[in-house]
Amino acid sequence: MIKKLLIANRGEIAVRIIRACKEMDIETVAVYSEADKEALHVQLADEAYCIGPKTSKESYLNTANVISVAKLTDCDAIHPGYGFLAENEDFAELCRVCNIIFVGPSPEAISKMGTKDVARETMKAAGVPIVPGSNGIIKDIDEAISLAEKIGYPVIIKATAGGGGKGIRVARDEEELIKGINITQQEALTAFGNPGVYIEKYIEDFRHVEIQIIGDNYGNVVHLGERDCSIQRRLQKLIEETPSPAIDSEMREEMGDAAVKAAKAVDYTGAGTIEFIYDYRNRKYYFMEMNTRIQVEHPITEMVTGVDLIKEMINVASGEPLSISQDEIQFNGFSIECRINAENPEKNFMPSAGRIDMYLPPGGYGVRVDSGAYPGYTIPPYYDSMIAKVISYGATREEAIARMKRALEEFIIEGVKTTIPFHLNLLDHETFISGDFNTKFLDIHDVMNPK
Amino acid sequence: MIKKLLIANRGEIAVRIIRACKEMDIETVAVYSEADKEALHVQLADEAYCIGPKTSKESYLNTANVISVAKLTDCDAIHPGYGFLAENEDFAELCRVCNIIFVGPSPEAISKMGTKDVARETMKAAGVPIVPGSNGIIKDIDEAISLAEKIGYPVIIKATAGGGGKGIRVARDEEELIKGINITQQEALTAFGNPGVYIEKYIEDFRHVEIQIIGDNYGNVVHLGERDCSIQRRLQKLIEETPSPAIDSEMREEMGDAAVKAAKAVDYTGAGTIEFIYDYRNRKYYFMEMNTRIQVEHPITEMVTGVDLIKEMINVASGEPLSISQDEIQFNGFSIECRINAENPEKNFMPSAGRIDMYLPPGGYGVRVDSGAYPGYTIPPYYDSMIAKVISYGATREEAIARMKRALEEFIIEGVKTTIPFHLNLLDHETFISGDFNTKFLDIHDVMNPK
Repeated sequence: MIKKLLIANRGEIAVRIIRACKEMDIETVAVYSEADKEALHVQLADEAYCIGPKTSKESYLNTANVISVAKLTDCDAIHPGYGFLAENEDFAELCRVCNIIFVGPSPEAISKMGTKDVARETMKAAGVPIVPGSNGIIKDIDEAISLAEKIGYPVIIKATAGGGGKGIRVARDEEELIKGINITQQEALTAFGNPGVYIEKYIEDFRHVEIQIIGDNYGNVVHLGERDCSIQRRLQKLIEETPSPAIDSEMREEMGDAAVKAAKAVDYTGAGTIEFIYDYRNRKYYFMEMNTRIQVEHPITEMVTGVDLIKEMINVASGEPLSISQDEIQFNGFSIECRINAENPEKNFMPSAGRIDMYLPPGGYGVRVDSGAYPGYTIPPYYDSMIAKVISYGATREEAIARMKRALEEFIIEGVKTTIPFHLNLLDHETFISGDFNTKFLDIHDVMNPK
Repeated sequence: MIKKLLIANRGEIAVRIIRACKEMDIETVAVYSEADKEALHVQLADEAYCIGPKTSKESYLNTANVISVAKLTDCDAIHPGYGFLAENEDFAELCRVCNIIFVGPSPEAISKMGTKDVARETMKAAGVPIVPGSNGIIKDIDEAISLAEKIGYPVIIKATAGGGGKGIRVARDEEELIKGINITQQEALTAFGNPGVYIEKYIEDFRHVEIQIIGDNYGNVVHLGERDCSIQRRLQKLIEETPSPAIDSEMREEMGDAAVKAAKAVDYTGAGTIEFIYDYRNRKYYFMEMNTRIQVEHPITEMVTGVDLIKEMINVASGEPLSISQDEIQFNGFSIECRINAENPEKNFMPSAGRIDMYLPPGGYGVRVDSGAYPGYTIPPYYDSMIAKVISYGATREEAIARMKRALEEFIIEGVKTTIPFHLNLLDHETFISGDFNTKFLDIHDVMNPK
């Protein structure tokens, strides 16, 4: 069993992991950059060590320093959270070499799923639906043109090493395709050191529906239902909900089975998410990508299933079998998460770092807050802008929405601008309330300036 | 339907009721004493009115002022919370006369259950087990002596108008009985204006187990399982849990049925609690009293049943039938509540009113906080000392305990002393962990000075 765990992360997810460890009687070691010495995760952990200057590269991405702290403090395991080192196969491999448990999948699984064209091929072989497109990396423009003609425009050009909205471009005709491939290849080379791109049919009218899975070291994989993350701004999720208004129990089972198949195809262990393009008008779904880590939006799944995903991750990482079988997983009620960012939604979501003078999170029945903030905390400008996640639970979608609204209305954050006004407008938007929308919602609707 | 509701209370329960109203789209009117003008419930309500000076008698118990505000602001309904006017039949009657919905039972039900000897007789008639004792008020010492001989010592002397630990005395022999009756009668006359006392067999080794019920205007009553409140200090509850470690599903059903019978015997509407003396060694239970209101510890029932009791109270008060039938009520998981009081547990729980300089409630999965506190809030010394309720939820009792511990450890309250250290010691106490204890737990164990 894991006795002492290093959390290679910061912010709310570091706090989330520390909380789970405390409940499991596991000692915790926090690491932090020079900019984060006052951070809540540093205060809550049993021990905390500075691992470098303010930039992520010199601190949270500094694998040598992270491993050194783990070794010097006798940690059995490292939990990477999300972002930073979470999907870094070299880091997972380094942990293995250093005899430290990496709380996550094997380097091989990370590698297979992290390389988009390999992932696509693996899914195809496993029988998981994929969007029609190139089999692997495009060799030259001619191949791209002939393929695009075959599958039909519009097509999407994706850098194989990209992700999270980076290295993606849509082409609606041959001219855009030629230009797009050139630009994306150059960008990908600069950003990721890998110029490979592939193309796929571009499905315009879809919902982002993802399935949470978790696997153990004994070949067991279960799914924990879906999350609908269709409300995105520049491919960044802002609000997530489960169940999806577009998914019925039959489709949940079908997509769930596909997700389990996908995970088993790479001998997946730990928590992961299969993201699907859901063509809800035709009840068709296609593999988009797999996130081989815990996700920001995992709490809504916890609220409706009662499964503590972080604890389950730690359990399977320490060699325990899954504590739950597929038959035991029940879905009760509705849950929504709003990401509260230190950004000004009235000024194009401009970052608003600074000191939080007054801070009072909402409470009461059916409201959960995951955050690294506190009264007097200064948000450093060097990392992501998320300061809190508010998660509501209700017996119906209407109740989950109403509860979220009252929670956001009572949330006091003074000193910085936040996205709370955006969320309040969104939750009042009739299209959001109807549940009938796709990933273009925020392109179509100006939530901050309703007509 | 209720459109606008006045909350005739303060503190966390006022905040709790305002939250439910906001989620139900009901306008809220807060009332407050001069000492409470900075209180959170005043800030959260749509409107707020001062109803008098700092003493409860002049403000929260000032029925004329409460009713006047309700009338002047066009409220349809008044929710009394707990304490203050919640079990005042005259106030419930006044609401009825003024054509305002009292969110609670009828004045007749309050009266029957509020008068201990009448309640006892009503329960006896309804077939609910009662502790052997006098049929009604003791007429004279001779009657008491002969009855005590019949049922056997020790006996307990109770003022019929008493409650909450006041007007109660144990007698272990005839001498104590004679003395006890005289003193209790005199005290009851002074405190309640009613010298009537009755006697009962004194059961020493029991658990306090209570059943939550709720009824509507159509004769439907359901129970929502039990709460175990055996950990008490001077008859004040400090920590409550559900399910009770001493109750199995068979006994839950039996006591639940008895509670429903008790409620139906007085045509009960709204939320209420039947408190039982549970002689767990012999699997026997006896009616103790009924609280004809919502209780402090109601959240733990909400956590395991998923039923929002405050919303359900408001629904039935506005004439709706119960939203749930007995068959639909499921019990999932384990929940514990710790009452965090501004008291110094190291100095005999001496009150510690004052300014809360720093305040950060715990968060994350499975933790709920109901509170009226915030950073910079000054706790007035005139009312009860409870500043927050921390409620944990877990898949097992062990998880609920572990989660409560980590929640209390991360709860930051600076500026006043609190009972958090007491709770942390209690949660680590092997007898508490074993689940095998009775109401004498705190008489036997010095939690603050463990050997």
